[in-house]
Amino acid sequence: MSAGRVRKEIDDALLAFVDRQRPGVLEISGDLAPLLSALDALLAGGKRLRPAFCYWGWRAAGGEDIEASRGIAAAAASLELLQASALIHDDVMDASDTRRGQPSVHRRFEAAHREQGWRGAAGSFGEGAAILLGDLCLAWSAEMFDASGLDAESLRRGRRVFDVMRTEVICGQYLDMLESARATGRVEAALTVVEYKSAKYTIERPLHMGAELAGGDPRVVAGLRAYGLPLGIAFQLRDDVLGVFGDPAETGKPAGDDLREGKRTVLIAFALERATPAQADLIERRLGDPGLDSAGVDELRAVIEETGALTACEKLIDQYTDQARAALDAAPVAPDARSALVDLAVAATARKV
Amino acid sequence: MSAGRVRKEIDDALLAFVDRQRPGVLEISGDLAPLLSALDALLAGGKRLRPAFCYWGWRAAGGEDIEASRGIAAAAASLELLQASALIHDDVMDASDTRRGQPSVHRRFEAAHREQGWRGAAGSFGEGAAILLGDLCLAWSAEMFDASGLDAESLRRGRRVFDVMRTEVICGQYLDMLESARATGRVEAALTVVEYKSAKYTIERPLHMGAELAGGDPRVVAGLRAYGLPLGIAFQLRDDVLGVFGDPAETGKPAGDDLREGKRTVLIAFALERATPAQADLIERRLGDPGLDSAGVDELRAVIEETGALTACEKLIDQYTDQARAALDAAPVAPDARSALVDLAVAATARKV
Repeated sequence: MSAGRVRKEIDDALLAFVDRQRPGVLEISGDLAPLLSALDALLAGGKRLRPAFCYWGWRAAGGEDIEASRGIAAAAASLELLQASALIHDDVMDASDTRRGQPSVHRRFEAAHREQGWRGAAGSFGEGAAILLGDLCLAWSAEMFDASGLDAESLRRGRRVFDVMRTEVICGQYLDMLESARATGRVEAALTVVEYKSAKYTIERPLHMGAELAGGDPRVVAGLRAYGLPLGIAFQLRDDVLGVFGDPAETGKPAGDDLREGKRTVLIAFALERATPAQADLIERRLGDPGLDSAGVDELRAVIEETGALTACEKLIDQYTDQARAALDAAPVAPDARSALVDLAVAATARKV
Repeated sequence: MSAGRVRKEIDDALLAFVDRQRPGVLEISGDLAPLLSALDALLAGGKRLRPAFCYWGWRAAGGEDIEASRGIAAAAASLELLQASALIHDDVMDASDTRRGQPSVHRRFEAAHREQGWRGAAGSFGEGAAILLGDLCLAWSAEMFDASGLDAESLRRGRRVFDVMRTEVICGQYLDMLESARATGRVEAALTVVEYKSAKYTIERPLHMGAELAGGDPRVVAGLRAYGLPLGIAFQLRDDVLGVFGDPAETGKPAGDDLREGKRTVLIAFALERATPAQADLIERRLGDPGLDSAGVDELRAVIEETGALTACEKLIDQYTDQARAALDAAPVAPDARSALVDLAVAATARKV
């Protein structure tokens, strides 16, 4: 079963669910069509990372091939709606202009409001529409999971993980926002955010959920989680590095966007920890400046490299990746799942530069 | 079983659920305590209207007394978390300062940000926190429903209604926002919003869900829905009247707040339909003015009365209330549920002036 084939089954399940919802929404009012179009556009992109980890957690724990059990395709794909909700709301909170190389949902509705010359503030209209579409995706995620077609006992086991996962990611988002506001600059605070907002949510819990859906042996579940958490941390640290040093064509975001947003990442915390007073002053002055130009981005990049923060972050990525690999080696997982999980680990943490 | 006793069982179930979630949240980080406090404060208020209708739908369809089945108390109370989510997000979208006589959630976090002298815009921090707490309530609502303890088959039947209900209320909110922006002023557009945002969500679907959870006879389900929809419309029209003419001590909102927010209600649509050009001009100039003072509120109130819109709205409330009562008379529901439903109808639509 190739990664491309799994991806196609997950995409098919996702689009089939949205298509089943469409007539009910349009029956309420044809005026709701723009909400559906915005969702279609968002779902056209994305790497389907969480569904893939969920599916391979299922396979690692002895679940059937995706073509023999369409239920797992739908249950796994429901995580993509959860992710859509998180992205839409995150973009409102960060006032991000783009997502997956397109205008973010709130900007899309803001532009529609402006074009139509409607009343009130276009920005508020855009934010309101995005809050509601994010809510719809959050509700539909649970609905899709429950309607996946897996048996009631499997769903009961999987839902416990699904429930924890939602609480963790929402709490992680709050802690992220809080750290941006408090700006303690502490590596530990940044790592807590990484753990809950990303590592558990993107990798550990999807694997965990897949394994529980399959009724996996507790040793398999424990092994997958021991692999997933450090891999998830490495994944987010890689993402943080790409947010500062990455190619816009690759990330779908303008160069240095994380710097403009003032994200308090582990990378930044490392830089502050190692900075001279002059360097720290530069970071504190420029980080989070919405008008930061490419010269400003270059200045911040230089400080992050000169302090050794980039090297320290790369080292940490390597350490966590090694830890994940060792946990996977020790876990009693099925052979084809093992090779897929190795590939996913490489894809999630590769330098891409 | 008195209304007070039902209310207490629902409150107990709600608070027990939140208390079960608390340690898991605080284990992630003690910094999450303010989210829980904000939720506690919000849940301390509220009339528990949706849980009450759900419970009486259950009883009307032959379900056991609340003391014999704690599962229905939890399943019904889960609707209060859905409502908390809707209120928190609605207040962000409407930029409302207060809710249930206290600061709205986003204002609460905005104030905390300001007091602490944190970085960034206090308003954005408040909105972000409110978006996330609303998300948490939406997720927890589904979690509480699923963990209510009712049997799997009952939950499966009830969840179908729960799913539709969430989609309807979110779509209704969008249509409400859209009508405020487009300001078509059409009675029909305002009535569609009333139907989906309020009538189905507050009364018809909670009754429907309760009856389905009880495995009710289709005739009972149909009868309850035929009672619930018109009653729900009457309920919202009453709320619209109170939003303009109500006593702040009763509504928990400043006098004329709906006028300041520029809500495009059926009451306003009636006024515009009947207005002279001068009256229409006054409405269009003053409605939605955030700085509207008490003299401005009085001016708008006078126009709404003089056009006959208030009388037309009261007449419509009476018509829908009568229609609801007739449907209830014809429905084959259990006697004690019938008398409770009559009381709820009175409570939901009474003039309160």
